[in-house]
Amino acid sequence: MPEMRHDPVQRRWVIIASHRSARPTDFVRADKKELPVFNPFEEGNESETPPEVYAWRSKSSRANERGWKVRVVPNRFPVLKIEGDLDREGVGLYDKMNGIGAHEVVIESPDRFDDLSILSIDHAVEVGKAYRARLIDLMKDRRFKYVLIFRNHGEMAGSSLTHPHSQITALPVTPLVIAQELESAKKHFSDKERCLFCDLLSQEIKDGQRIIDQNEHFVAYAPFASRFPFEIALAPRKHSHDFRTITDDKLRLFMDILQRILQRLNIALDNPAYNFMLHTAPNTESFTPRPTHWATLQYDWHWHLELIPRLTNIAGFEWGSGIFINNTPPEQAAEILRSVELD
Amino acid sequence: MPEMRHDPVQRRWVIIASHRSARPTDFVRADKKELPVFNPFEEGNESETPPEVYAWRSKSSRANERGWKVRVVPNRFPVLKIEGDLDREGVGLYDKMNGIGAHEVVIESPDRFDDLSILSIDHAVEVGKAYRARLIDLMKDRRFKYVLIFRNHGEMAGSSLTHPHSQITALPVTPLVIAQELESAKKHFSDKERCLFCDLLSQEIKDGQRIIDQNEHFVAYAPFASRFPFEIALAPRKHSHDFRTITDDKLRLFMDILQRILQRLNIALDNPAYNFMLHTAPNTESFTPRPTHWATLQYDWHWHLELIPRLTNIAGFEWGSGIFINNTPPEQAAEILRSVELD
Repeated sequence: MPEMRHDPVQRRWVIIASHRSARPTDFVRADKKELPVFNPFEEGNESETPPEVYAWRSKSSRANERGWKVRVVPNRFPVLKIEGDLDREGVGLYDKMNGIGAHEVVIESPDRFDDLSILSIDHAVEVGKAYRARLIDLMKDRRFKYVLIFRNHGEMAGSSLTHPHSQITALPVTPLVIAQELESAKKHFSDKERCLFCDLLSQEIKDGQRIIDQNEHFVAYAPFASRFPFEIALAPRKHSHDFRTITDDKLRLFMDILQRILQRLNIALDNPAYNFMLHTAPNTESFTPRPTHWATLQYDWHWHLELIPRLTNIAGFEWGSGIFINNTPPEQAAEILRSVELD
Repeated sequence: MPEMRHDPVQRRWVIIASHRSARPTDFVRADKKELPVFNPFEEGNESETPPEVYAWRSKSSRANERGWKVRVVPNRFPVLKIEGDLDREGVGLYDKMNGIGAHEVVIESPDRFDDLSILSIDHAVEVGKAYRARLIDLMKDRRFKYVLIFRNHGEMAGSSLTHPHSQITALPVTPLVIAQELESAKKHFSDKERCLFCDLLSQEIKDGQRIIDQNEHFVAYAPFASRFPFEIALAPRKHSHDFRTITDDKLRLFMDILQRILQRLNIALDNPAYNFMLHTAPNTESFTPRPTHWATLQYDWHWHLELIPRLTNIAGFEWGSGIFINNTPPEQAAEILRSVELD
């Protein structure tokens, strides 16, 4: 019997259709793309990107030259542009505004054949520090309501360059996905005076069957209402609403567990395409009026990372309903990922 | 300058990023899949599908034998199953219920090389009649809150069989996508005592630049806040909330304009993959308590069809924000599609 499950954060239903898992078309794999002839992210090509806004580089090296290990640069093809005013305007029943924002690339290594999952832990921590530093800096711009950090890995996940990189976008609106989660969290808090995510984590840890990995400060688990096979949530055990405030010690544990779940995925599923998205707090200092409930954000919101392997296609059913069909029960996915033996 | 646009129905922002349209990776095309060796939908293979629940066939022919042109059968791999009770249950903070529903396939032609876009109009009308008949029948089952009709065309759109077909699912919940639209429509109606969709259509027809095609009863246009390049909305000009009540005359005009927009897409974009989804009224006769605002559904809801070509990939930005990046302004898409010369 297929089972329908409801997610209390995003308030969506999914169908866990394990009875369909024998279908041959379930997991699609795109062919690996040829490496592009020219790679602007590689060491030596620094002048081919816009000037860096952040870098981890040897002390003897100079900005925009060789000698870096992690480098953050504005995207050459930004989806949003940094200069200008928002200019909100109505068009009959519609609304529009200028696409003001920022779009940056975190080049995670000078080597195109490297991968976030196999960087040394010291190197991986520096990627995490780049995330933190750019969040802190971009959120000083009061035109931006939200800063989204995400990673597209593999062609199926929408990555056009194989060189290891993540992306950062600063947005002039609170994105719908985050707004819905904020609302659920607020509702739970005002009912119970407890954080929804803390409650979820506590239930998951007690239950145990969906836990994938954990360390002193972080827990990775397969969400009860996973939309996708092998979907993963990763969150700090202790309440914390803002990734900007993560300490160096905790950042090391965060990057360590992130690398471990990526290794588990790579081994269990043969290097699948995936997206991960960091869900941190919105910018409470933004200019435009903010919802009154942001006043309690530090109590009711809990930052987390969402990882979705891109193994299946999304079709008319999902587009028409918003209900996802997942052929791999999260309990089974967690067991497979948990059982992977890491070095 | 990129532009952000807001959709008043689904209340989402999109980024119209026409400045990025030169990127070579914008439109991805999947290789055409080999036809499967065995095709259960073909004439002569009737015994390989579950028994038909509806068919348009010659009077001399018998059910589940040759002689049909349109045939509706339960899906052999249903995402939801027809027998059983809902058995709603809480699991700590989570909710679950049995996956009760229906999942049917509308086989649109006995010929695997046929296509909805090129069927004779009489044949196409019979596909529309199959939609209408199955909606009427499935909505008699008071366990079902919503019946979703959709079509996946091409591998990129999640279609695993090339034989021309659409799908019908009956759901025990009101899907989120529809619930959000119902809410927007209700809000607009209670503010203004006018249908939101009627107002949108009137604005679009007056403006004209996003109109793709029209006839006496229907208008096809590119939505102002299109998420995808060449996205199309198709709706009746006159207020009508429920596809079940469409007359034969109007059904002919509906299938005619649907075929015309498919032909326009096929010519302009070389037979792209696409999904279309019919957004009709939910089942107001369902057992479970229904939102009080369904009382005014016949005034505030307006059925429509949404068509999304699958030319681009969805990546971490969209998953993390719910904001879509569309590199083709809908005004430009409309002009291209409108300019296609049909026979």
